[in-house]
Amino acid sequence: MSLIGSAKLQGCCVSFHNIKALVFDTFGTVVDWRTSIIRQLSELGTRKGMQADWEAFADAWRAGYHPEMDRVRRGERPFASIDVLHRERLDEVLDLFKISGLSEGQKQGLNKAWHRLDPWPDSVGGLQRLEPRFILSTFSNGSFACLVNMAKYAGLPWDCIFCADIVRHFKPDPETYRGVIDFLGLSPNEVMLVAAHNYDHRHARLHGMRTAYVNRPTEFGPRQTEDIKAEDDWDVIVNSFTALADVLLIEGASRAGVRL
Amino acid sequence: MSLIGSAKLQGCCVSFHNIKALVFDTFGTVVDWRTSIIRQLSELGTRKGMQADWEAFADAWRAGYHPEMDRVRRGERPFASIDVLHRERLDEVLDLFKISGLSEGQKQGLNKAWHRLDPWPDSVGGLQRLEPRFILSTFSNGSFACLVNMAKYAGLPWDCIFCADIVRHFKPDPETYRGVIDFLGLSPNEVMLVAAHNYDHRHARLHGMRTAYVNRPTEFGPRQTEDIKAEDDWDVIVNSFTALADVLLIEGASRAGVRL
Repeated sequence: MSLIGSAKLQGCCVSFHNIKALVFDTFGTVVDWRTSIIRQLSELGTRKGMQADWEAFADAWRAGYHPEMDRVRRGERPFASIDVLHRERLDEVLDLFKISGLSEGQKQGLNKAWHRLDPWPDSVGGLQRLEPRFILSTFSNGSFACLVNMAKYAGLPWDCIFCADIVRHFKPDPETYRGVIDFLGLSPNEVMLVAAHNYDHRHARLHGMRTAYVNRPTEFGPRQTEDIKAEDDWDVIVNSFTALADVLLIEGASRAGVRL
Repeated sequence: MSLIGSAKLQGCCVSFHNIKALVFDTFGTVVDWRTSIIRQLSELGTRKGMQADWEAFADAWRAGYHPEMDRVRRGERPFASIDVLHRERLDEVLDLFKISGLSEGQKQGLNKAWHRLDPWPDSVGGLQRLEPRFILSTFSNGSFACLVNMAKYAGLPWDCIFCADIVRHFKPDPETYRGVIDFLGLSPNEVMLVAAHNYDHRHARLHGMRTAYVNRPTEFGPRQTEDIKAEDDWDVIVNSFTALADVLLIEGASRAGVRL
């Protein structure tokens, strides 16, 4: 079997010719949310003369995200966008860190820090190379507004925004995977998930999607223990969007140089 | 009152400084659907040795669109995307024009002619100029897949796709206008509708949105009688996206040169 336009992986050949859309997990995969949030918290602290362990603050803020999404998933509360969940958690974390004196407007502005996240250094360049060949969409638990604003801020060349707000479900609910396939009007195997999280790929594969794992071993900081490597034989396994574009675009490219 | 960044219209000054998003009706406003459909029908006819009045065919095909959307609006049938409605009507019109011999795959391919519509000559250039300053979104009764594919085909630089599929309602249902405002997380007066149809602007204004009328007097062919001019004092009234960009981008631009 020719390796032109395909990649040899774990002993089998995977052709990428029929892939029409790449759908990207965004927080952690495309943007470095943790460094971006810490930076914005530090800048606000400097402006307002507030001191705190901003790394711990950022981690505590993000830590509220999964439990609250799980409550939505279990039907214990109606669907609420991630902006609402981030804001509820922000109020808790401000109390936890004993930070007071922010006006309502300042809290709203701080909550929008999640709309101003910086991409990993390879993200924009890789997306720009992939854009002429594939439909590029977000596939994120973020809000529609957050993802639109982030794209303008960071220069992410999405063709469309697909997110939790549209189907009113969070990943890994089946409605999200089936939703993105159906909204794009494609077959499952014409859609490839690009994500840095193994759980996301496990669900994407269950729904018949293709899987490209991009390793982001410092998403959660220097002591990250989860998602530091691919945990299954995902169709593509790379360290950057540069390598992803190499694999998907360059006919006959050997993946030897880009494997982990 | 200074005219810098504003436009004098019907005796009042309208400032555009606070507008954050432009949302575009697409069929007729951005793309010349009629010429594009006639061209694709003619090409298919030549390839298959079929003859028909393709202009009449295109008009009959499109004519099925409003009555069937109205049935959805009145609750007489569940929501169905425009791709489904176009396909149902295609089967009727093929019978009407006594055209047989197309395979199921050829009918599916023909129905996708609506995903391959050419922009008006000024559309892409105007959008490219507006894109750095505003969020640009579709605001269309088209399907999500149709609008994504059309953007790739025609080079339309949307930041996001908003359409009937997302709210499962067709314009002018209130859910569409309120939906696009809410999904973008903006206030109504931060969102400007760009459209060639007066009914669309009437509803947008009811919901507090800004209104930019772009005249497309040949959308329905040389004998068009409706929407050949602005029928109210919309915030902007222009003949092209070039003029729209001039008005919204050029500080101090006089609208004298771009008024109808």
